[in-house]
Amino acid sequence: MGLVVQKYGGSSVADAEGIKRVAKRVVEAKKNGHQVVVVVSAMGDTTDELIDLAGEVSPITSGREFDMLLTAGERISMALLAMAIKALGHEAQSFTGSQAGVITDSVHNKARIIDVTPGRIQTALDEGNIAIVAGFQGVSQDKKDITTLGRGGSDTTAVALAAALNAEVCEIYTDVDGVFTADPRVVKKARKIDRISFEDMLELASSGSKVLLHRCVEYARRYNIPIHVRSSFSGLQGTWVGNEPQGDQPMEQALISGVAHDTSEAKITVVGVPDKPGEAAKIFRAIADAELNIDMVVQNVSAASTGLTDISFTLPKTDGRRAIEALERAKAGIGFDSLRYDDQIAKISLVGAGMKTNPGVTAAFFEALSGAGVNIELISTSEIRISVVTRKDDVNEAVRAVHTAFGLDSESDEAVVYGGTGR
Amino acid sequence: MGLVVQKYGGSSVADAEGIKRVAKRVVEAKKNGHQVVVVVSAMGDTTDELIDLAGEVSPITSGREFDMLLTAGERISMALLAMAIKALGHEAQSFTGSQAGVITDSVHNKARIIDVTPGRIQTALDEGNIAIVAGFQGVSQDKKDITTLGRGGSDTTAVALAAALNAEVCEIYTDVDGVFTADPRVVKKARKIDRISFEDMLELASSGSKVLLHRCVEYARRYNIPIHVRSSFSGLQGTWVGNEPQGDQPMEQALISGVAHDTSEAKITVVGVPDKPGEAAKIFRAIADAELNIDMVVQNVSAASTGLTDISFTLPKTDGRRAIEALERAKAGIGFDSLRYDDQIAKISLVGAGMKTNPGVTAAFFEALSGAGVNIELISTSEIRISVVTRKDDVNEAVRAVHTAFGLDSESDEAVVYGGTGR
Repeated sequence: MGLVVQKYGGSSVADAEGIKRVAKRVVEAKKNGHQVVVVVSAMGDTTDELIDLAGEVSPITSGREFDMLLTAGERISMALLAMAIKALGHEAQSFTGSQAGVITDSVHNKARIIDVTPGRIQTALDEGNIAIVAGFQGVSQDKKDITTLGRGGSDTTAVALAAALNAEVCEIYTDVDGVFTADPRVVKKARKIDRISFEDMLELASSGSKVLLHRCVEYARRYNIPIHVRSSFSGLQGTWVGNEPQGDQPMEQALISGVAHDTSEAKITVVGVPDKPGEAAKIFRAIADAELNIDMVVQNVSAASTGLTDISFTLPKTDGRRAIEALERAKAGIGFDSLRYDDQIAKISLVGAGMKTNPGVTAAFFEALSGAGVNIELISTSEIRISVVTRKDDVNEAVRAVHTAFGLDSESDEAVVYGGTGR
Repeated sequence: MGLVVQKYGGSSVADAEGIKRVAKRVVEAKKNGHQVVVVVSAMGDTTDELIDLAGEVSPITSGREFDMLLTAGERISMALLAMAIKALGHEAQSFTGSQAGVITDSVHNKARIIDVTPGRIQTALDEGNIAIVAGFQGVSQDKKDITTLGRGGSDTTAVALAAALNAEVCEIYTDVDGVFTADPRVVKKARKIDRISFEDMLELASSGSKVLLHRCVEYARRYNIPIHVRSSFSGLQGTWVGNEPQGDQPMEQALISGVAHDTSEAKITVVGVPDKPGEAAKIFRAIADAELNIDMVVQNVSAASTGLTDISFTLPKTDGRRAIEALERAKAGIGFDSLRYDDQIAKISLVGAGMKTNPGVTAAFFEALSGAGVNIELISTSEIRISVVTRKDDVNEAVRAVHTAFGLDSESDEAVVYGGTGR
């Protein structure tokens, strides 16, 4: 029996009862002969409460001190979990990100892990203890300041530790039973996916599936760490993400994993860009220098009469204001006409292997949308994904139509086990 | 202008308003040309809430994990204070006890400071920043585990940093205007003390005065760091504790500093101890091995007929159960008859220089108690203090009688400024 890394999110440790339930599950894994490392998020609403407090004392809720503040949340949950495990008669020690050797760069509020040196965790395991590690946090390599990893940080902590410790599996416990063929709140007939490849999971994650974030799956793929996404409430088998072969289907046939949607993005259109080499580069250099990530990019055909073109891209709404500001600052150097901002959009994506070599997939996808009366504004494709941007109001109908069209609906009306708090 | 260390307690940073008020005061000191190091406690009831949470997940609220949990409190307040200072346009950086170089032994929940290496604080100051340090916490020298310093820990952090950084003064901000000749809640005519020696302050502290704890004063005396105890609400001059000469009074005359009382102790009587050398040592070795501190010790005269004696001592009520358990375990080795436990006691102490050489002081003290009809159960004296144990019910009357008898009453009926939350 090898080493298991388990990660529990904020809803799993929302209160004392939750912490005790998690403690029992951890002890069970230990009793089954595993070495166990547990990564925890902050309890329930703790982080939101800390953010509110910060807003009360300062208009600037970012930077070094904001990280120092937020990391108090995991400190509380991990210490309580260690105490709850001890109360069950097992030895547990908690470690901050810094103590666990999670070394990051110095970009506060969304630091990137650059090394993991889990010497103290290994020692704790060697001594027969359960090790609890604060998710979402690390320490900067140069200044030794406390950093946080931003969205999905705790999942990434778990996968990074699993890689550094050569774990058998990284179990991500959440409040749903696994990864579904579509969001079960939108598609009642969505099915739980039993196994999915890293690549398909990456596309689902970057297309709006909230269960696992892109960053964590990317890390797992690089180090080939199998992820098991499962419910901390039901105890059922969840979704395995890994390099396993995709069943006995012929390799050439398109295998649709699921339909994802995302309403968290906005679309920015840069209007009247001179259609000459280097212009697009200037735009995206300005965005990159502001440390903002973009998603889809589409450049319209240039109007021959004016020599001007429009460039549209999507990005998280939360970065919208900063992107507009960055572009306005760079306006003189780029030389565009104006900016348009639209946050009433939705992105719908179909993900699955062998899509590019099956032209029928794209056709069927567009036919399904058309049949539902949904207009398409942008299109973007990859080897295993096709995404469109539509009006936000059309999203639910569009997802259901595509889910049905590709035969993903389950037999029964509401077959999915959808546990927990419903978050 | 030199370096000032300021310490703010939990009631001063109880909410966002309090934090902003403290931020203004800190910035004021900085504007006056000082280098400023600020030590903060956890906000208001945070620590109590964390203790409650711990009680919900485990019956054992102590040890390594409990320290990890509690230190989240100061992490929150210090980060918020740094953010509030930045919002006022000044640079501030917060540091955990570990980052500030507060090195302790490994006795969790009441660790002792064994070294302070404030290299990062000095760097922050040299760069023109205000440094905020989490009170109450450190890191153990051998295991690098997070420790807490126990009662009065934040005051001790402040004085220890003041010593290590060669500060001009350590300002302890609290919710009262300073140190008083008696507890103003008991004695309406109590007066604020303007200046007091380390020695008298030590005796007041160990006799129940809550404003400063013994441990912090002891540290300040050893390194000769003047302490200024003052209100974070009123901004008035408070009480200076230091080596200054005691005014122009002739040195030989008794100078009474104040009357302290303490109802937090219990009395344990070990009944029927063989009256031979080494017996008392065995009793107090058993207590010391359990890491318990005792206060007063009295051995009764042996009854010649039995060769047995009784030994009484006082200690914090919170340690009572553990002391009884330790003595029961050692019973066979010591060979006593039985144990008596009494937590309905109070200690009343008169503190001032030149007391031993003024026999009239002791007489007047006992006369005042007798005049108030208060019975004396134990007596203990030092060079500058005389303490008695009485029934708990008699304590207020006893303190008032002694305060009046020694001419400590202020002229007006209620002259004292007693600010803040009344804690």
